[in-house]
Amino acid sequence: MPQGKPLTVPDDGLSTRQRRNRPLLALHTGDGKGKSTAAFGLAIRGWNQGWNIGVFQFVKSAKWRIGEQTVLERLGRLHEETGEGGPVAWNKMGSGWSWTRKQGDAEDHQAAAVEGWAEIKRRLATEEHDLLILDEFTYPLTWGWLDVADVVETLAQRPGFQHVVITGRNALPEIVEIADLVTEMTKVKHPMDVGQKGQKGIEW
Amino acid sequence: MPQGKPLTVPDDGLSTRQRRNRPLLALHTGDGKGKSTAAFGLAIRGWNQGWNIGVFQFVKSAKWRIGEQTVLERLGRLHEETGEGGPVAWNKMGSGWSWTRKQGDAEDHQAAAVEGWAEIKRRLATEEHDLLILDEFTYPLTWGWLDVADVVETLAQRPGFQHVVITGRNALPEIVEIADLVTEMTKVKHPMDVGQKGQKGIEW
Repeated sequence: MPQGKPLTVPDDGLSTRQRRNRPLLALHTGDGKGKSTAAFGLAIRGWNQGWNIGVFQFVKSAKWRIGEQTVLERLGRLHEETGEGGPVAWNKMGSGWSWTRKQGDAEDHQAAAVEGWAEIKRRLATEEHDLLILDEFTYPLTWGWLDVADVVETLAQRPGFQHVVITGRNALPEIVEIADLVTEMTKVKHPMDVGQKGQKGIEW
Repeated sequence: MPQGKPLTVPDDGLSTRQRRNRPLLALHTGDGKGKSTAAFGLAIRGWNQGWNIGVFQFVKSAKWRIGEQTVLERLGRLHEETGEGGPVAWNKMGSGWSWTRKQGDAEDHQAAAVEGWAEIKRRLATEEHDLLILDEFTYPLTWGWLDVADVVETLAQRPGFQHVVITGRNALPEIVEIADLVTEMTKVKHPMDVGQKGQKGIEW
């Protein structure tokens, strides 16, 4: 519950309104839960503002966030039907990104990550989305699959007004450095510690 | 991305399926962002599973989570119209809880919190919801407005299969103790540190 009172006011020549209206690069990292869930919460909120939402899932996880995908795509169709909210584009690696026809070699994850990043660069250049969620994007960076300097420069220099949220553990310091908002989700207590496995609705 | 392999298996006589199907009490605490946003993300996912969702907002914040409320209530109407997902009940303190007619003294927050908790007890007893979000519920507890022993006993002994998510800073140790899943959201870097105020779509 921030009360809207900044601790310091920067000497950057911007008015509060100009500063308020800066696009954010947010990073949700740490070993705890909620990194992606909070990002999708932001997407839902952005949809309600009429934003064009682009989601890019970089790592195929067991349950594949199918709940979030179903709901966000449903909201995207609601936008098409009624004009409520904004458009939603959901893209996932693994089975082949949605903008490509080719199904590709499902095993070549690095090539798929490189292709995903190239598409994100194109969309940032054309300002297609108002909010881009790069889900689990820290991993292809940590694994050395992408050119970190290129990612840093592209994100830091992105044109216009595009919010970007990156999720995933072990964010590289270069990404923390350029992020405006960094939240670390820390596991204090988890049911898997006492032998409970994931369950419907909670984990997916 | 937990891989579904528990670190230990408890000697509680339950099968994995029984253990998996235990209702969770989750707590999102810490000074960072994403506590409520991740909770609403869970609500969205639960809606998609057809769950009956009950949200109880305990503290009136500046922007009042109007984006989340709009979208979740819209999804609730979608359920009524098409049968998709589940029902949604959004209740907020401050202007008078939605189940009461009386607007009451807007200043008597303690009485409103007590009234809210009494209603939650009734709903837990009748198992009205599949997922209850007690948003910013840590505050009336920290402020001594509610009987902590009563809250602990009621939550720990709740019947049936009801997931509960509590959000807010400074959770009391008694709540951490009974929670199955505790995540601390820690602020690493926040734009308000450098003079940026909240903005549409990101903060509300």
